[in-house]
Amino acid sequence: MTKLSPQTRDKLKTISTATVATALFKRGLRIQCIQDVHPLAPDQPTLVGEAFTLRYMPAREDLNQLSVFRDRAHPQRKAVEDCPPGAVFVMDSRKDARAASAGSILVTRLMQRGVAGVVTDGGFRDSAEIAKLGFPAYHHRPSAPTNLTLHQAIEINVPIGCGDAPVFPGDVILGDGDGVIVIPAHLADEIADEAFEMTVFEDFVAEEVRKGRSILGLYPATDDRTMVDFAAWRRSTGR
Amino acid sequence: MTKLSPQTRDKLKTISTATVATALFKRGLRIQCIQDVHPLAPDQPTLVGEAFTLRYMPAREDLNQLSVFRDRAHPQRKAVEDCPPGAVFVMDSRKDARAASAGSILVTRLMQRGVAGVVTDGGFRDSAEIAKLGFPAYHHRPSAPTNLTLHQAIEINVPIGCGDAPVFPGDVILGDGDGVIVIPAHLADEIADEAFEMTVFEDFVAEEVRKGRSILGLYPATDDRTMVDFAAWRRSTGR
Amino acid sequence: MTKLSPQTRDKLKTISTATVATALFKRGLRIQCIQDVHPLAPDQPTLVGEAFTLRYMPAREDLNQLSVFRDRAHPQRKAVEDCPPGAVFVMDSRKDARAASAGSILVTRLMQRGVAGVVTDGGFRDSAEIAKLGFPAYHHRPSAPTNLTLHQAIEINVPIGCGDAPVFPGDVILGDGDGVIVIPAHLADEIADEAFEMTVFEDFVAEEVRKGRSILGLYPATDDRTMVDFAAWRRSTGR
Amino acid sequence: MTKLSPQTRDKLKTISTATVATALFKRGLRIQCIQDVHPLAPDQPTLVGEAFTLRYMPAREDLNQLSVFRDRAHPQRKAVEDCPPGAVFVMDSRKDARAASAGSILVTRLMQRGVAGVVTDGGFRDSAEIAKLGFPAYHHRPSAPTNLTLHQAIEINVPIGCGDAPVFPGDVILGDGDGVIVIPAHLADEIADEAFEMTVFEDFVAEEVRKGRSILGLYPATDDRTMVDFAAWRRSTGR
Amino acid sequence: MTKLSPQTRDKLKTISTATVATALFKRGLRIQCIQDVHPLAPDQPTLVGEAFTLRYMPAREDLNQLSVFRDRAHPQRKAVEDCPPGAVFVMDSRKDARAASAGSILVTRLMQRGVAGVVTDGGFRDSAEIAKLGFPAYHHRPSAPTNLTLHQAIEINVPIGCGDAPVFPGDVILGDGDGVIVIPAHLADEIADEAFEMTVFEDFVAEEVRKGRSILGLYPATDDRTMVDFAAWRRSTGR
Amino acid sequence: MTKLSPQTRDKLKTISTATVATALFKRGLRIQCIQDVHPLAPDQPTLVGEAFTLRYMPAREDLNQLSVFRDRAHPQRKAVEDCPPGAVFVMDSRKDARAASAGSILVTRLMQRGVAGVVTDGGFRDSAEIAKLGFPAYHHRPSAPTNLTLHQAIEINVPIGCGDAPVFPGDVILGDGDGVIVIPAHLADEIADEAFEMTVFEDFVAEEVRKGRSILGLYPATDDRTMVDFAAWRRSTGR
Repeated sequence: MTKLSPQTRDKLKTISTATVATALFKRGLRIQCIQDVHPLAPDQPTLVGEAFTLRYMPAREDLNQLSVFRDRAHPQRKAVEDCPPGAVFVMDSRKDARAASAGSILVTRLMQRGVAGVVTDGGFRDSAEIAKLGFPAYHHRPSAPTNLTLHQAIEINVPIGCGDAPVFPGDVILGDGDGVIVIPAHLADEIADEAFEMTVFEDFVAEEVRKGRSILGLYPATDDRTMVDFAAWRRSTGR
Repeated sequence: MTKLSPQTRDKLKTISTATVATALFKRGLRIQCIQDVHPLAPDQPTLVGEAFTLRYMPAREDLNQLSVFRDRAHPQRKAVEDCPPGAVFVMDSRKDARAASAGSILVTRLMQRGVAGVVTDGGFRDSAEIAKLGFPAYHHRPSAPTNLTLHQAIEINVPIGCGDAPVFPGDVILGDGDGVIVIPAHLADEIADEAFEMTVFEDFVAEEVRKGRSILGLYPATDDRTMVDFAAWRRSTGR
Repeated sequence: MTKLSPQTRDKLKTISTATVATALFKRGLRIQCIQDVHPLAPDQPTLVGEAFTLRYMPAREDLNQLSVFRDRAHPQRKAVEDCPPGAVFVMDSRKDARAASAGSILVTRLMQRGVAGVVTDGGFRDSAEIAKLGFPAYHHRPSAPTNLTLHQAIEINVPIGCGDAPVFPGDVILGDGDGVIVIPAHLADEIADEAFEMTVFEDFVAEEVRKGRSILGLYPATDDRTMVDFAAWRRSTGR
Repeated sequence: MTKLSPQTRDKLKTISTATVATALFKRGLRIQCIQDVHPLAPDQPTLVGEAFTLRYMPAREDLNQLSVFRDRAHPQRKAVEDCPPGAVFVMDSRKDARAASAGSILVTRLMQRGVAGVVTDGGFRDSAEIAKLGFPAYHHRPSAPTNLTLHQAIEINVPIGCGDAPVFPGDVILGDGDGVIVIPAHLADEIADEAFEMTVFEDFVAEEVRKGRSILGLYPATDDRTMVDFAAWRRSTGR
Repeated sequence: MTKLSPQTRDKLKTISTATVATALFKRGLRIQCIQDVHPLAPDQPTLVGEAFTLRYMPAREDLNQLSVFRDRAHPQRKAVEDCPPGAVFVMDSRKDARAASAGSILVTRLMQRGVAGVVTDGGFRDSAEIAKLGFPAYHHRPSAPTNLTLHQAIEINVPIGCGDAPVFPGDVILGDGDGVIVIPAHLADEIADEAFEMTVFEDFVAEEVRKGRSILGLYPATDDRTMVDFAAWRRSTGR
Repeated sequence: MTKLSPQTRDKLKTISTATVATALFKRGLRIQCIQDVHPLAPDQPTLVGEAFTLRYMPAREDLNQLSVFRDRAHPQRKAVEDCPPGAVFVMDSRKDARAASAGSILVTRLMQRGVAGVVTDGGFRDSAEIAKLGFPAYHHRPSAPTNLTLHQAIEINVPIGCGDAPVFPGDVILGDGDGVIVIPAHLADEIADEAFEMTVFEDFVAEEVRKGRSILGLYPATDDRTMVDFAAWRRSTGR
């Protein structure tokens, strides 16, 4: 399924969600950040990939006994086996972390299958184990109860909400220390290009600021000298 | 589509959501109440009908310009025209009342089409007008902004969450002054029968309590005399 | 049990919670208002009486089957029968209105027993019926599920929290359109006296303001003329 | 101070907040609704006027004894006396209704002074009395404690937030049953004109829908016949 | 007081809260997780012990001056000295972390007395110091203000709510990276046995998944081969 | 501008927010803690300095395009350049972390300018980079979107609310692992002195408790022996 080009994927790995947020903001897209999700490990790799989604609804008790997992077609288990390598598994848990969205076994399986990472606006169980996997994983907070307690997996790869952001299958997901942002699929290449260039400039600015330069005239570059200096910096650093 | 029998519908119209909640509780169903939704008018009729659902996701700005309503297949407008007479139009607005789920024109159209009522876990705009329709309508609170501001209608008649309750198409919806409850379709007849009988007993109890009788032994009927008195009351009242 | 004197009770019936809140504020008591509770009927009588409390804890499922009510010593039912006439039945529902604190039968029983009123920081079921009783009742919002769903009655007449306010058995409860306030028992007489006098002055101020007088110098009475006018007004109105 | 023309004021009195919200949405203004505020009385008049603001900050205890009101320059009292006739008194209470923003005496004074109405994203004390004034007043919920408990009035007529909406002094405020919306001052005339025309069309649509006409092709008017019918309706109704 | 057997205690130390949550879920116990509490240190030992409880109510200002701690019978201080070695000190702070439940001196005292750990659904002050103790401690978030600011210790070792879970004195508490779960006392041995066996199977599954095996047929073990492989694995690993 | 004496600054660097909270509590100041803000790095230095404030209001979309930063007088950028060395930059973000209050470039600039630290009750973007600066920084949680998305900087160095605490320019800010507390300017010296002495006693108590001594009679020192021992400890430790 993956239409995300290797070039764009590689570029995005070097770009922050903050920079992408600004690039989307310029285009009138203001709510693409998945709100209030956090990496399980502070040093986990950057998350990049196309969204493959799972939608949960509230779990009706009679339909959510443990035996339901014996059905190989159960949407949660099927989705874990169907999520394409390179994709990001994104779950709509209705921002409810009172029960888990998944645990370490399913997350390990996703990792083994070559999936790029996992996001829920609820919580993971076995969170300490997941944190050790070196696999990009984001949630609101840890949560021990089985998903059946409150969540019924109901649809695979449909448009969902996650942390108040719209997520369409195939949208490009980027995650770093600030959380996770959703780039509409048709904008992925252009956002990656633009944000890549913005990042070069921001790196220059950061270096200047660390040297003690004022932000006035520098950021944004309203001073003519700023762009002159930036050009020189690009030449000297080869960026 | 309506499989809800006229008898069950009529019975439910005389039963409270509280009594149904207890009957569902006996069966291990504890989260069937749509939480924190309120009738728009204090004197609106009891709401009974089968659920016909609309799912909203967060609105991506570029996909939710006013022009989208020019498309006759737009899910919100299509759903309003497709909802069967006698059904209840239930919207999953992700408990977000910061923008409207619908307004008085669509609600009036539903009413004209013979729909039984309307429920959202978000809010209605034109709420004062809706309140005057004499049509059963429930929401969390009034909300003036157009739904496009935050809600994108995405799927018609799929299983949804509404106010943290699971709602499957065809489930039987009951609403009164306490709010709205969802009866799983396969239980509708049996719950209606049982709750109808419970209501007769509760009416008897209420009358006794108003006369000054203690609840001990009466409610529940652990005193033998209670059932004797109840039998006599049924005979005398013809219930 | 009632130590609240008839005189203080009568005075309090003419005083607003707002005025009492100010009198308590002067004494360093800032959190005596039960937050976010509302009268079930807009025109219900003023609530005055000493607190008789019931504490709920979260309901463990195995201990909260419907059969528990067959036990006459069940704390919820026992409390309803034990609450003294003239007292106010105050429930600590941990601000959780997802299940009911009580319903119309128990509230009617309290009313029949001469109890002065009822308060919960959760919700009542059968709320429309309770609203018709003409009985002072306050909750956060209506809630259909039986209390067993989430609340287990565990202790009678112990100190509790209700809507983030401390409530000790015997504290004097006052409720009006703004909600409910808790007057520490030992302060009841002095607060009633002081608030009664404050109310006379506020009535004078309100009358003056309605006539078009500025609040500056009038409220508070920093202008000498204010107290002169007030004295004249008291004479002329006999207050 | 009032620059709001009588024509625009009169037009706005016939227009709903929902219609204005849509007109603002067309211009990219999506967060102008003051969220989660409610009219104190269901039948209070429509609120229209220019914003005159008061900003509260959290009350430091040593600076907020009752004696502060003896200072005629106290910002809350001064603001009440300074708010121009025809303006709307809008308070930034940081969405905190645990203490009052004002009470019936101050609101009555505002009314006497010819102020058009009052809005807070906190709560009013003496709310039942305010509700009887026939004066447009909006808050989140009733709240008995004096404002000094949690709110310190700190600035008059500066830009504020109210219910998550931006409010600049002079912005035009419109309130109805759905709540309150803020129209940027420079857009007031054009929004009033546009919304007035939209209202005429919506009234036509509502009438057609009440007659049983489908919304498809009618709302929005993608059917040619709709505009023909609308033109005829305008002629026949004189609108 | 400790009736928790050393065998069960030891077993529980090797079991996750997630596995216990599933074992309780099988028995219809769905709300035993203390919601939204977190370990103070990521590497603190597993928490196991019987619950010894302290209940806080909202602090009335006149009853909560610093001098109250001069009373050796003050419930907070008494509870810290009375909590049995091996027990877990669990505080009902009404999910309010705006003031502390306790600080490092009391927590150190508990540790010195041989108490197994400490849990509050509020917050600890001196949290950085507590985090260095190597003592199992859980709270919602750090909080500097003294408990007297908002919390009055009122009862020792009564049934409480903690993070929306029911906690009875003597219930067995288990805490790990996902948070804290409450095992009803009478189920402790059987849950420990069952969860211990479940853990063996989950460890086998985790190993297989890490090798690349699909979860279908493996987890749950609907494939006959799974149980054959598991039996072999147990033999080879001696578990 | 700094009136904070070097002596008081140095003393405060050795004192915890918890101890200061107690010293303020003694003086009736109960809400000086900025609620629910957290250090970006666990090992960042203690934060001490006088408050220099920035107030945000909700961002109206037409006034918050990226181009606004080209104005050198834009309040956010101007404030960053104006904040005095040694001061703490405190932002009122209305407790809304859905968009950033600032990012690593501005925070680095503050650090370079000798500012003592930075606090917002919203969130920072580039939070992982800020965490590496070794600069005291506090927020509610990371947030990638540019501040323009929701926050408009509107006033510099006015009294604000931050995390429900009142902050006046010049108030002394102290931050440690428990969060941030605000000391009214006129109390800074006396609080520092008192808290410094309290800290000596608490260190003695902590040492005794670590040795196994009971808190009864020790903390508070109701036992005569405690003060004798404390005096000896001070002599022997030279404190």
